[in-house]
Amino acid sequence: MRAVGLIVEYNPFHNGHAYHLQTSKEAAEADVVIAVMSGNFLQRGEPALVSKWQRTKMALQNGVDIVFELPYRFATQKAETFANGAVSILDSVGCDSLCFGSESGDLSTFLQTIDYLEVQQRTFNENIKQYIDTGVSYPKALSLAFQQLPDADKYLDIAKPNNILGLEYIKAIKQQKSTVSPMTIPRKNADYHDEHFASATIASATSIRKAIFTENDRQTEIDQYVPEQTKLLLKDYLQQYQVFHQWENYWNYLQFRLIHSSSDELKEIYEMEEGLENRLLASALSTNNFHEFMQQIKTKRYTWTRLQRLCVHILTNTKKEEMMRHSEKASYLRLLGMTTMGREYLNKKKSNLSLPLISKLSSFKEKEINLDIKAARVYSLGVPSHLKYKMLRQEFEQPPIYIKEK
Amino acid sequence: MRAVGLIVEYNPFHNGHAYHLQTSKEAAEADVVIAVMSGNFLQRGEPALVSKWQRTKMALQNGVDIVFELPYRFATQKAETFANGAVSILDSVGCDSLCFGSESGDLSTFLQTIDYLEVQQRTFNENIKQYIDTGVSYPKALSLAFQQLPDADKYLDIAKPNNILGLEYIKAIKQQKSTVSPMTIPRKNADYHDEHFASATIASATSIRKAIFTENDRQTEIDQYVPEQTKLLLKDYLQQYQVFHQWENYWNYLQFRLIHSSSDELKEIYEMEEGLENRLLASALSTNNFHEFMQQIKTKRYTWTRLQRLCVHILTNTKKEEMMRHSEKASYLRLLGMTTMGREYLNKKKSNLSLPLISKLSSFKEKEINLDIKAARVYSLGVPSHLKYKMLRQEFEQPPIYIKEK
Repeated sequence: MRAVGLIVEYNPFHNGHAYHLQTSKEAAEADVVIAVMSGNFLQRGEPALVSKWQRTKMALQNGVDIVFELPYRFATQKAETFANGAVSILDSVGCDSLCFGSESGDLSTFLQTIDYLEVQQRTFNENIKQYIDTGVSYPKALSLAFQQLPDADKYLDIAKPNNILGLEYIKAIKQQKSTVSPMTIPRKNADYHDEHFASATIASATSIRKAIFTENDRQTEIDQYVPEQTKLLLKDYLQQYQVFHQWENYWNYLQFRLIHSSSDELKEIYEMEEGLENRLLASALSTNNFHEFMQQIKTKRYTWTRLQRLCVHILTNTKKEEMMRHSEKASYLRLLGMTTMGREYLNKKKSNLSLPLISKLSSFKEKEINLDIKAARVYSLGVPSHLKYKMLRQEFEQPPIYIKEK
Repeated sequence: MRAVGLIVEYNPFHNGHAYHLQTSKEAAEADVVIAVMSGNFLQRGEPALVSKWQRTKMALQNGVDIVFELPYRFATQKAETFANGAVSILDSVGCDSLCFGSESGDLSTFLQTIDYLEVQQRTFNENIKQYIDTGVSYPKALSLAFQQLPDADKYLDIAKPNNILGLEYIKAIKQQKSTVSPMTIPRKNADYHDEHFASATIASATSIRKAIFTENDRQTEIDQYVPEQTKLLLKDYLQQYQVFHQWENYWNYLQFRLIHSSSDELKEIYEMEEGLENRLLASALSTNNFHEFMQQIKTKRYTWTRLQRLCVHILTNTKKEEMMRHSEKASYLRLLGMTTMGREYLNKKKSNLSLPLISKLSSFKEKEINLDIKAARVYSLGVPSHLKYKMLRQEFEQPPIYIKEK
């Protein structure tokens, strides 16, 4: 059985994801699709729209065979760490290939860029440092530094977010000496960050979320961009928990945490840089919602994403020391769901898995999963008070979602 | 000018307080009444119904001439520490007497009891320890241990909360070698903890708060028990801030704090005893409101009050180390309000004050007031989001309330 791996957030699962899934499966000539999916908090430093369970159902009902959770320790991180965690999971379950969408869509460009960067490494790093010193953000410095290299335009456009991620996936594969073979397909029609609908059937998750949170008649608005199952599962979630999760649901808690903590405590938070804690505190005291707060703390130096991730770590109380303690590779496999085909695949691989397989959280006692537990607890604060406990219980007691194939 | 001191919470100011004030002023033959009043959080470990400013107005409009804030460091504490802080403030402003209400109402009984306890100290302490070991709470052990002493019934009934407080006031005066002379008057008609209205005009603050929080037509219900000014000031507060403060307004924050903190962090909180943090966390995860939570954590060993105070310290993130750092006596005088007469008194005493006088928080930079600042920040989370900042700004920019006497 050949397996292709996808690294996803499905926030929510939409037609673009369906296209990526089908194309990847065909290109890889795979029997099984394995998705590594972020849990409660996502790479851009935001809570997921709906729970990991509901997003797992979306995945399984649309062609994914196995869903593993990308632990918090990797999911809320810059591209390099994110990629390292995700690749290590695919590697440990014996996945044959990893197929990612990219703006470039051409694997050889990726490989050439990696070789080129190895040769140019010293100049590249010096360039980056120079740009950082001018006060721009790290991603911006990276992109500008790259453009300074000779013949840069023959290589990958690393200003594009999915090209950057792809680059990191391949670097992770090389570094981990993994047998997973990288593949890429061009992304169709929607830019990662697009806030507006640009095509008739494919839209970015960002624009879909935007419609969900701003339109009165939100269901109709997104219908053409998501599969029927997503539509039903979103509706079902709203019925169960009365909300879709967004930062504003957690704003009160973030504010509270900032105003009752000492500077020394805030300095211990992962990704908190010297002096930033005072800026955050001052803004927490004088703003009324998360959006206002973000606008006030934003500078040229820190991207919105970087600051949102920091805010997630403040919410979950994730310390520098805690993150450092963990390895650069995953140390467990948390199985969120599978189809009949997925189960068959796992049964075959079971004896060769290089990591412990967690089917139910309540039966896994290792300390390393604490970050995920804290994230789940904090995520549950986003639903109305009387539903928190229901949500938390699901997190601990839910066995992997199982879907029988027709 | 003779000054009589009162130690109060005025939560809210009611007819019983008015009676205590008038009787004390007459008994002490005083020209000036000085109140030391708890700030945002009270001795029973609860947020004050309305802000310190509104309660200051109640006091000044009803005959108090000067209101000083009893700092958080003393206000949210057991009787001994509470008394030490309050007495040190009255002492430092040259107050002639302290007049407290008590169930006993007889000063000589207090003095005899103190002398008796000094003689019996060893036996008394041994008795206390024995009772503590049976698992009862400290106040219970105290009362039972006292009853075991020979001829105990000839002395003060220390099962009564105001007798205990009075005892501690007198002990603090002795210990601080203060020139303040203690006086007591009998409390009228209402027991401290009474939840029901027992008289036509005098009711406990507890029963008044209960009516405020449970009755639809709350204003009518409490009218006969509070002066007109209290009625108007409560109404005004509700118009300004849309709420009266109670624990349930802070429950979400308490829960959040408990579920995202490590055991080690929780162990640092003042009054957290070994093992209690796990009990609190488990209950935070499984209960839906503060009352449910309290009922679940309550044991024979810990009184409701003791646990509520601990919860306040969790909210304000007050550490053992932070509390220990402070002296047993107040280190500043925060002036909340005064009448013309009060101002005259202060002008006379100004050059002899033994502590710095704070008129506006924003102009006082000493570290020792940090606990009060944190308490004010957390207290402001009890009002609707868009009013938090208004409340916080008042805390920093409000000069003492000044009321011109007719």
